[in-house]
Amino acid sequence: MLGKVAVVGAGMTRFHHSLHKNKNGRELFVEAVLEAYSSVDKGIDPSEIGAVFTGYFAPTFFEHQAHVGPLAADWVNLTPKMGWRTESACASASAAFITGYMAVASGLRDVVIVGGIEKMSNLTTEEVTDALSVAADNEYELPAGVTFPGQFATMANAYFKRYNVTWEQLQAIPIKNHRNGALNPKAQFQETIMDRAVKVGKKLGVKFKDELDFLKSEYNRVIAWPLRLFDCSPISDGASAAILVRGELAKKYTDTPVYVSGVGFATDSLSLHDRQTYTSFKSTMEASKQAYRQANVKPKDVDVAEVHDCFSIAEAIATEDLGFFKKGEGVKAAQKGITSIKGDKPINPSGGLKCKGHPVGATGIAMVYEIWKQLRGESGKRQVENAETGLIQNLGGSGASCGVIILRR
Amino acid sequence: MLGKVAVVGAGMTRFHHSLHKNKNGRELFVEAVLEAYSSVDKGIDPSEIGAVFTGYFAPTFFEHQAHVGPLAADWVNLTPKMGWRTESACASASAAFITGYMAVASGLRDVVIVGGIEKMSNLTTEEVTDALSVAADNEYELPAGVTFPGQFATMANAYFKRYNVTWEQLQAIPIKNHRNGALNPKAQFQETIMDRAVKVGKKLGVKFKDELDFLKSEYNRVIAWPLRLFDCSPISDGASAAILVRGELAKKYTDTPVYVSGVGFATDSLSLHDRQTYTSFKSTMEASKQAYRQANVKPKDVDVAEVHDCFSIAEAIATEDLGFFKKGEGVKAAQKGITSIKGDKPINPSGGLKCKGHPVGATGIAMVYEIWKQLRGESGKRQVENAETGLIQNLGGSGASCGVIILRR
Repeated sequence: MLGKVAVVGAGMTRFHHSLHKNKNGRELFVEAVLEAYSSVDKGIDPSEIGAVFTGYFAPTFFEHQAHVGPLAADWVNLTPKMGWRTESACASASAAFITGYMAVASGLRDVVIVGGIEKMSNLTTEEVTDALSVAADNEYELPAGVTFPGQFATMANAYFKRYNVTWEQLQAIPIKNHRNGALNPKAQFQETIMDRAVKVGKKLGVKFKDELDFLKSEYNRVIAWPLRLFDCSPISDGASAAILVRGELAKKYTDTPVYVSGVGFATDSLSLHDRQTYTSFKSTMEASKQAYRQANVKPKDVDVAEVHDCFSIAEAIATEDLGFFKKGEGVKAAQKGITSIKGDKPINPSGGLKCKGHPVGATGIAMVYEIWKQLRGESGKRQVENAETGLIQNLGGSGASCGVIILRR
Repeated sequence: MLGKVAVVGAGMTRFHHSLHKNKNGRELFVEAVLEAYSSVDKGIDPSEIGAVFTGYFAPTFFEHQAHVGPLAADWVNLTPKMGWRTESACASASAAFITGYMAVASGLRDVVIVGGIEKMSNLTTEEVTDALSVAADNEYELPAGVTFPGQFATMANAYFKRYNVTWEQLQAIPIKNHRNGALNPKAQFQETIMDRAVKVGKKLGVKFKDELDFLKSEYNRVIAWPLRLFDCSPISDGASAAILVRGELAKKYTDTPVYVSGVGFATDSLSLHDRQTYTSFKSTMEASKQAYRQANVKPKDVDVAEVHDCFSIAEAIATEDLGFFKKGEGVKAAQKGITSIKGDKPINPSGGLKCKGHPVGATGIAMVYEIWKQLRGESGKRQVENAETGLIQNLGGSGASCGVIILRR
């Protein structure tokens, strides 16, 4: 019964911590949607759009604003069309994407916009940490002082111990993601970690001999042991958007449609203490199982993936949960270059959350943006060769929710 | 392409301002889901459920909690199933309902739970007013001191002037809704306004000769002129749930399925200053147009409706926007008894938001609960005779969003 759905356009703002200071969330959304419109090869008339679904994690804290669904629709001049906000912490945008997917696959709508927003820079770092913490369990975790760096640090420690991996080895992931993100004009930090090491070294009068030398220095301070600054994605402002249409209509908009071949979304306990393991996400495994089954795709068929590296350890775990590598092999794969753009299984060619930035509610559809570009061969210097099948994995909170979307050329 | 969808179960907590003080939102949701399970005539095994979508307007303010999708799924033991939170102010639950509807109508899932939660009593009245205000536009309306009673008071004044209607005439709506709600064991106030007048009169040593005499007294204080206390829905805690299944499977669960024949959801500007009129909701008109068209139903075919009387004036306007009465005739219809349970067009037999209570994110699916019961003939003393087609209209904020759902026996 499921109708075929295609992505025919996508857009995103640059992600940044300060560039968008004077814009609010709705204005960022307008920028993303305008790029999505202009990316439709044969053009699109906004009057054809039947709904607008918008992910936004914590607008109440960041902008003292809720009811963002109609607000977003209004600012792109699409009222009175259907639309509301989806929220599932950092997976808010993949929830919006799947909402739009279902609207089209069901036949209720022919053309929809899905998007995501987060405008975080209005708050101080401490306030952001508090705002983000509501994605954890307020009854059990927050009273114990839990923050997200602490939760992922716990996972890192468990992972290191279980698989005999060191923090130094883990650094292959942020090093690779910064190398990729340096090639991405939408990325928050458009520099490699070596670029940064040289800049910082000049200021301090120190010469770092390589990236690891810099990452081991005091400059890369501990955030939550063993995770340091460069293990953590930054605070970012940004928005993203994608245009989904009924498969039969795709060729009206483009000769290069990208099809949604499978979607999955899964849940788990918010509290870490209720999980059976800290070295794997049940939500990722289940969501990917749903998406792989629907798409009739196996992990080995995936040519390129954007995964949720909110912290470096999360990328390692994600690439294992998605079935790309055996448990405990994710860090080693990055070390060996397998996950580099020219490797066998390129992961986060965009630079990932670490380098591209992580405006929480915008991230899932920014991942879609990257994969859409990759499958169309429009990724310039960071292009993965002959990518035909791409996957996005978008984790919520400490893994209590996860969206997985498989796109095919 | 749209698959048929049936409602085979529904549940809700009692709505109340103090009864649930010691429970949190997740516990209220469990109560609603357990009643929904037990309402399935032939039983249901929770393992059959494929997703849980949960509306909740402002959990960040009320419970310092977001990421409510997986939280709700976890507490009803349904992880790792698909699920997230929907938010569209007071229309959050109709957004959850339509999300679940699309999941089933698309064929992505066979059986889903949709629900809504709001746990408001943790805050003081002043804090609640501030929390609710984020459904208005923080850039344009809040700096001007806008609150929801003020916005609906503005609409009431515009309506009175335009249609030559008085506040005294408008009282037909809360009087009727309290008469209905007095018969509803789930209602927050299980008393008529006359019941209340007698109680208050005893305390004050006064005898009120009828409901209007009481409503005109100082006890019924002005909240935002011309609206008084009994024109406003209360602060409430509560949760609601419904079970949706693929039409072909309905008879497995019940011999009395209720089918979803049409859904609509529409948006408008958050700010009142951007609207063309204050005496009509574009979102209601558009959402109902979508739903009527899909259901192939006309306003005259609707046997019973639950509409969003967050303020008394909103019910009058809703019944006009839905096409039940001509513009300016909504109040008069209530005065003539047309909207009473035994009238030609019964509106809010549950008692409406005014008497049943209004836990914001739970309201839309509590409306579905009432209509589902009515269509199955299970509404006891407040049963509408021979109800075959029912409608719910669930407004968000001051009308920037609206969900409309048509159910048929």
